[in-house]
Amino acid sequence: MHVVCVGGSDAGISAGLRARELDPSTEVTVVVAGAYPNFSICGIPYYISGEVGDWHHLAHRTRADLEAAGLHLLLDTRATRIDVDARQLEAIGPDDTPALVDYDALVVGTGARPVRPPITGLDTLGAADGVHLLHSMGDTFALGDSLEKLQPRTALVVGAGYIGLEMAEGLTTRGIHVTQVEAAPEVLSTLDPELGTLVHAELVRHGVDIHTGTSVTGIAKGADGLHVTGQARDGEALSWDVDLVLVVVGVTPETDLLVRSGAQTGPRGAVLVDETMATGLPHVWAAGDCVATHHRLLGTTYLPLGTTSHKQGRVAGENALGGNARFAGSIGTQVLKVFDLVAARTGLREHEAIAAGFDPASTTSAPDDHKAYYPGSHPITIRITGDRATGRLLGAQLVGHLTTETAKRVDTYATALFHGMDVADINDLDLAYTPPLGSPWDAIQIAAQAWVTQHQPASTRTQP
Amino acid sequence: MHVVCVGGSDAGISAGLRARELDPSTEVTVVVAGAYPNFSICGIPYYISGEVGDWHHLAHRTRADLEAAGLHLLLDTRATRIDVDARQLEAIGPDDTPALVDYDALVVGTGARPVRPPITGLDTLGAADGVHLLHSMGDTFALGDSLEKLQPRTALVVGAGYIGLEMAEGLTTRGIHVTQVEAAPEVLSTLDPELGTLVHAELVRHGVDIHTGTSVTGIAKGADGLHVTGQARDGEALSWDVDLVLVVVGVTPETDLLVRSGAQTGPRGAVLVDETMATGLPHVWAAGDCVATHHRLLGTTYLPLGTTSHKQGRVAGENALGGNARFAGSIGTQVLKVFDLVAARTGLREHEAIAAGFDPASTTSAPDDHKAYYPGSHPITIRITGDRATGRLLGAQLVGHLTTETAKRVDTYATALFHGMDVADINDLDLAYTPPLGSPWDAIQIAAQAWVTQHQPASTRTQP
Repeated sequence: MHVVCVGGSDAGISAGLRARELDPSTEVTVVVAGAYPNFSICGIPYYISGEVGDWHHLAHRTRADLEAAGLHLLLDTRATRIDVDARQLEAIGPDDTPALVDYDALVVGTGARPVRPPITGLDTLGAADGVHLLHSMGDTFALGDSLEKLQPRTALVVGAGYIGLEMAEGLTTRGIHVTQVEAAPEVLSTLDPELGTLVHAELVRHGVDIHTGTSVTGIAKGADGLHVTGQARDGEALSWDVDLVLVVVGVTPETDLLVRSGAQTGPRGAVLVDETMATGLPHVWAAGDCVATHHRLLGTTYLPLGTTSHKQGRVAGENALGGNARFAGSIGTQVLKVFDLVAARTGLREHEAIAAGFDPASTTSAPDDHKAYYPGSHPITIRITGDRATGRLLGAQLVGHLTTETAKRVDTYATALFHGMDVADINDLDLAYTPPLGSPWDAIQIAAQAWVTQHQPASTRTQP
Repeated sequence: MHVVCVGGSDAGISAGLRARELDPSTEVTVVVAGAYPNFSICGIPYYISGEVGDWHHLAHRTRADLEAAGLHLLLDTRATRIDVDARQLEAIGPDDTPALVDYDALVVGTGARPVRPPITGLDTLGAADGVHLLHSMGDTFALGDSLEKLQPRTALVVGAGYIGLEMAEGLTTRGIHVTQVEAAPEVLSTLDPELGTLVHAELVRHGVDIHTGTSVTGIAKGADGLHVTGQARDGEALSWDVDLVLVVVGVTPETDLLVRSGAQTGPRGAVLVDETMATGLPHVWAAGDCVATHHRLLGTTYLPLGTTSHKQGRVAGENALGGNARFAGSIGTQVLKVFDLVAARTGLREHEAIAAGFDPASTTSAPDDHKAYYPGSHPITIRITGDRATGRLLGAQLVGHLTTETAKRVDTYATALFHGMDVADINDLDLAYTPPLGSPWDAIQIAAQAWVTQHQPASTRTQP
């Protein structure tokens, strides 16, 4: 049995490891386009910031670890075509050497590539000019080189999503003054603006100069650095002179290999798979950022996340061996650290819930993370979205101080959502309490009570 | 409608507040034996330590808050008898004034009292001698007085359960050298010894002198302080000369009022109630530390916890008005901070699981709280107990550094337990990840995988 995985990131490696774990007699080959298999690309901002001193530490596992686990790695090898009938993968190896790899089962995890927004100059300027996109380890080294060579004092970050915000923090931590430009009305547009504004304030507090509702239209090389032009929503023309530009406005699925072989695509052009991660092409599975995501509340969507890639890769690896594992579905749980704040969400926001046929209502409250009498308590801003018709929990968004265990409090909502709990029933959960770390009703229960009080007052009133 | 609550702690106050919340026309009287309604007795160690400067801050709500919420408080009033047929509560008020209170519905939350172990001298020595039990605000003030008057340099704490450990920390924080004596083989005997030993080491690291497997047999007043004698399990006689002794070896339910009226009792002598918190006596509900606890895995047991008291009080308050609320049951979720460590548990340990008819097996692992490349990561020791026959999660015990969000990671296990999840299915949960705060597979999932690998290797192997 020979399982071939295309892609050396989370999905491909997870699939290969799972296959070896289940049957150590399985031969597993991983075809890796670059030279850096199994790197934690989520860690790149912390290498750029200087908090991770050695880039090698960003590897989830070293090459030696992977080989010891029985994965045969073909590095610097780009898969170009799948011959589905012959069960053969065509590839171009180092020095442009063509390669043919026979397989019994193929798992494709080609991931995603960064979106290039329509900014004048972005196509002609590049790393040598201090203009960067950031997705791969190669991009990381190029940015590292620019930081060394240019010694930038100022940088402009296009985009204020997860990576954009982490990079704003990372560059600020390096002592670089950051201007951040975001087209949406508020930073971190994956949260409702009333929570995004808290993250915005945290960035400002740390000296980041933020322009929301503003598009970057052009980048040009000036006498002394880069001249960036933009336009605010009201039409006002803006410009900035900076030493470095970083464009991080999201990703798009990398599907060429599968699409050329006849795979079907869905939302955002991602490859459609079923819950077993089968592509519909015989003996070909796919997982990770290149595929459409099964979402437990939304059905099929596109929601690339590392956690999901690991889970899907594991399922694909098991099924490549003839198993019957199923991806249980995402609920879009995400968390972000920005300086001393943590912002998290799980499930749906109102507009998503409406699109999915629910009748959502939301309530925001700000219970303390622990008893206020014990030093160091902070409110956690929690916005609960529930279904008015059924009382069902639909989503939760949380923003709290780094010390408030917000990153793991969201997991309780995620687990409640996984089980389809009603908002009111969150009060029944037996959660941990000690005054330095919680309250007899945990903050997540107090927020649920606030939702019930606002949206289900009648149902809680007894009829004597 | 007049609801009378006996007891000014979590259960009684929660019941009264819930009744008023549901129907603001309800008259609610709370009969409080002491002068300190609605105090957070879990916060006492942090007042003694000096971290809470003003004892008033330990109140969940002030007397004014409670009165503003519509609760009529009868302070310093001890309920002595329930006339069930007449729906009348007899009490002794301030200055020994007898009082009669008519009720339509009665909620009894008389709580628990500290256990007095059979230690020679404990009956004759008291606060004036520097010998203390600790449960109420009165006890707290007495201990505070001793700390002022005696200015102790050394203290001996009898018992190393939750309160004993918190007090060992609190007294150490005040600069007092603490000797701690525990009869069980390891401290924090609510955890398996391999986790208790981590807590033990943390205490030692902070200078606490611990004697496990050792009973205190006597306390006597010496020329210059207190002479405490004890015996180790091997028969060795031990003695200590200290300035202060604190005896905190657990609580026993305070049931006299209900038992005298004919209420039935169960485990540990606690009053039996059904899931509506009804006592079986007409129009009389009971909640909190005085009642036997419905446990979702164990059935009826005794497990006094503040979180449970709040939930049960809320249910009793709703049902006193004619509602049909049900206490969903405890799963024994608990957490404790000891210096820089957090110890938590939920569900069952093996001996409890065996007694409940399961076929338990446990696996301990120590995954990092977050990606090791990001500064500040620590392993969390996680011991998972699952049922060998069904794969069902039965319990989890965790010990981790204060910064590892262990206190809220246990909540995810608690929520999984609430829903009867299998250990293997914990991998399906969509949990939050960012490198500074987690891993693509969260620590709680890695621990679940370790259990599955050890105890269900066959079930995870596919049959191609």
